[in-house]
Amino acid sequence: MSVLVVGSMAIDSVQTPFGSRPEALGGSATFFSMSASNLTSVRLVAVIGDDFPAEHVDMLTKRKIDLAGLQRVPGGKTFRWQGRYSENLNEAITLGTQLNVFADFRPTLPEHYRDSEYVFLANIHPVLQAEVLEQVRAPKLVALDTMNLWIDTEIEALKKVLRRVDMLLVNEGEARQLSGEYNIVKAARALMAMGPSRIVIKRGEYGALYFEGTHIFFAPAYPLESVFDPTGAGDTFAGGVVGHLARTGRLETADVQQAMVMGCVMGSFTVETFSVDRLMKVTPQEIRQRFGRFRGLTTFADLADDFE
Amino acid sequence: MSVLVVGSMAIDSVQTPFGSRPEALGGSATFFSMSASNLTSVRLVAVIGDDFPAEHVDMLTKRKIDLAGLQRVPGGKTFRWQGRYSENLNEAITLGTQLNVFADFRPTLPEHYRDSEYVFLANIHPVLQAEVLEQVRAPKLVALDTMNLWIDTEIEALKKVLRRVDMLLVNEGEARQLSGEYNIVKAARALMAMGPSRIVIKRGEYGALYFEGTHIFFAPAYPLESVFDPTGAGDTFAGGVVGHLARTGRLETADVQQAMVMGCVMGSFTVETFSVDRLMKVTPQEIRQRFGRFRGLTTFADLADDFE
Repeated sequence: MSVLVVGSMAIDSVQTPFGSRPEALGGSATFFSMSASNLTSVRLVAVIGDDFPAEHVDMLTKRKIDLAGLQRVPGGKTFRWQGRYSENLNEAITLGTQLNVFADFRPTLPEHYRDSEYVFLANIHPVLQAEVLEQVRAPKLVALDTMNLWIDTEIEALKKVLRRVDMLLVNEGEARQLSGEYNIVKAARALMAMGPSRIVIKRGEYGALYFEGTHIFFAPAYPLESVFDPTGAGDTFAGGVVGHLARTGRLETADVQQAMVMGCVMGSFTVETFSVDRLMKVTPQEIRQRFGRFRGLTTFADLADDFE
Repeated sequence: MSVLVVGSMAIDSVQTPFGSRPEALGGSATFFSMSASNLTSVRLVAVIGDDFPAEHVDMLTKRKIDLAGLQRVPGGKTFRWQGRYSENLNEAITLGTQLNVFADFRPTLPEHYRDSEYVFLANIHPVLQAEVLEQVRAPKLVALDTMNLWIDTEIEALKKVLRRVDMLLVNEGEARQLSGEYNIVKAARALMAMGPSRIVIKRGEYGALYFEGTHIFFAPAYPLESVFDPTGAGDTFAGGVVGHLARTGRLETADVQQAMVMGCVMGSFTVETFSVDRLMKVTPQEIRQRFGRFRGLTTFADLADDFE
C-alpha cells in the first residue's frame, strides 16, 4: 500500500557539537518519505521554490517517492530553517525560520493520490491538515503530528481535525500541553477522548510509548554511541511506523508494536549523520539487522514456573 | 542465597503533590531489604537510634530479614530526612537532613554474615563500603550504589572501592559526572574501565539500561497512572535486581536481564504508596502478574522472513 504524506520540504542549516551543515535537505515530508520509502511506496505533497536543488528532486524520484503532488512556485524561495543543538542534543534552538513559499501552501492532491489508504499529516496548520482529509476518499489509517504552536494558537481547528484522526503522534511536552494532564498515562487517555484511538508519545532518546485502549507498549530508542544530528528524527520515526503498517496492510496491535520498533530503527539511522545522508544509503539487510538488535535490547525470559 | 545489604535506615518526612507523610520508615537499606525479601533472605547492616519505632523492627523481623547486623545506639537519634517532590516527581527537594547516629556509622558484620555471596553496598561513604568488603570472605556479586556527593568529595576512595565491584548502579547524572562522558554508551564504557564489568544506569520514570561488554539491555519503567511517592524507588529497584540474582544463583546475561525487569517491577510497586506500604503487602502472585505486564509492554514479533 502507498503512504500519502503532506508536510514541509526545507533547506536546513544545522549546527551540532560535532560539526555544522549548511543547505541540507530537510523538512517533515522529506524525512518521513525517505524513511517510509525503505518500506513501501510514498506519495508526497509539499511545496518548494525554484531555488530547490534539482539533485534532491532527482534523488527522491529515484526512490519509490511519487512527486506528482510536489508544488513548485516559480520565483519563490523554499522554506528554510536554521538551528543549533547543544551537547544534550535533546532540543533544537531555532536560530531562524523563513517560511517563504510554505507560508501560502495549500495542499492539493493529484487525482491518483485520492485513494490513499495510509495518510500521514505532518506538522502543518490544522486547517490544512483537515483540507487534505477532505481530498482523501476512504483512508484506513490517518496519522497526525502537530506542535506547541498549533496547540497555543489553533486549538479549536486542531481539536476539529483530531476527531477524524486514528493515530496521534506527539512528544511528551505536546501530549501534556494538549491534554492538560501531567501524568503520561492520563494524558494519553485524555488524548484518546479527543478522537484518535491510537496515541503515540515520543520521548526522544528514551523511545516512544503506544497507547491503544488500556494496552501500553514501549519501544526504546537504541542507545547509540554517537548521536550526530537529531534533526528529523520524529518524522523519520513516523515514516517507519506508518510505512511499516502500509507495507503489511494490517492494523492489529501486534502490527503497530512492530511498526513502533521500525520507527525507532529508522530514527536510529537518521541521527547517525546530517540530513538524510544515512537514510539514503540504508539497506534492507541493515534494517533487518538493526531490528534484531532492538529485539536483543528488550527481550527477556518469563519467570520460571516455580516462582512463588 | 542470602543477600547482604549495608546502608541507611531512616525516618523520612515526605511531601508530594498528593499528600504528605511524616515519620515514615525510610532509608536505602530499608527499601532494598523490603524489596529483596520478596525474593530471598536478607542480611541487613545499618544503624538506628533508640527513637526508632519498635513496630518497624517487628515488621522487618517478620520478613526474611536478618537484623543481627542492625546497630542500636543508646541515647542516639535515627537518621532523618525531610523532602518534597514537585509535580514531575523526578527529583526530590531536600528540606532537611539530620545524620544523627548515621554520622558515626561503622559497619560491622556479624560472623555469620561473612560468607554472603551477594552483596549490595548502598549509598554510603566509599571508605565504609570498602570496609564492608574487607569483612566479606568470597562474594560472588558485589553491587554498589553511590551519589554526586561522593563523586564530588571522595573520588579517590570511590575509585578505589570500584575496582573491587562487579556491578555499579547509578543514575544518568551520576554516570555522566563519574565518567566525564555525556553520551550514555561512552559513559558506561568509561565506568567499566574503572572496575565493574556490569553497569546499570537508572533513568527514573524511563527505566534502566544494563551494559555488559558490548551488550546493552533496556528495562522500561512501567507507565503508571498514579505515581504517588518515588522515595526509595532506586534502592527498591536494586533490591529487585540483586534479590533476583541471589534467588536464582546465576549471573548469566539472561539472568541479569530478568533481574533488571524484576527491579523495575519492585520499583513500580514502591512508588504506588508512601514509604514501604506497598512492598509490605505485595504477594508473589502480584509480582508474577506485573512481571507479565512488563513482558506485554516490551514484547514484539520479529520481522517476517520475506522482509527485504
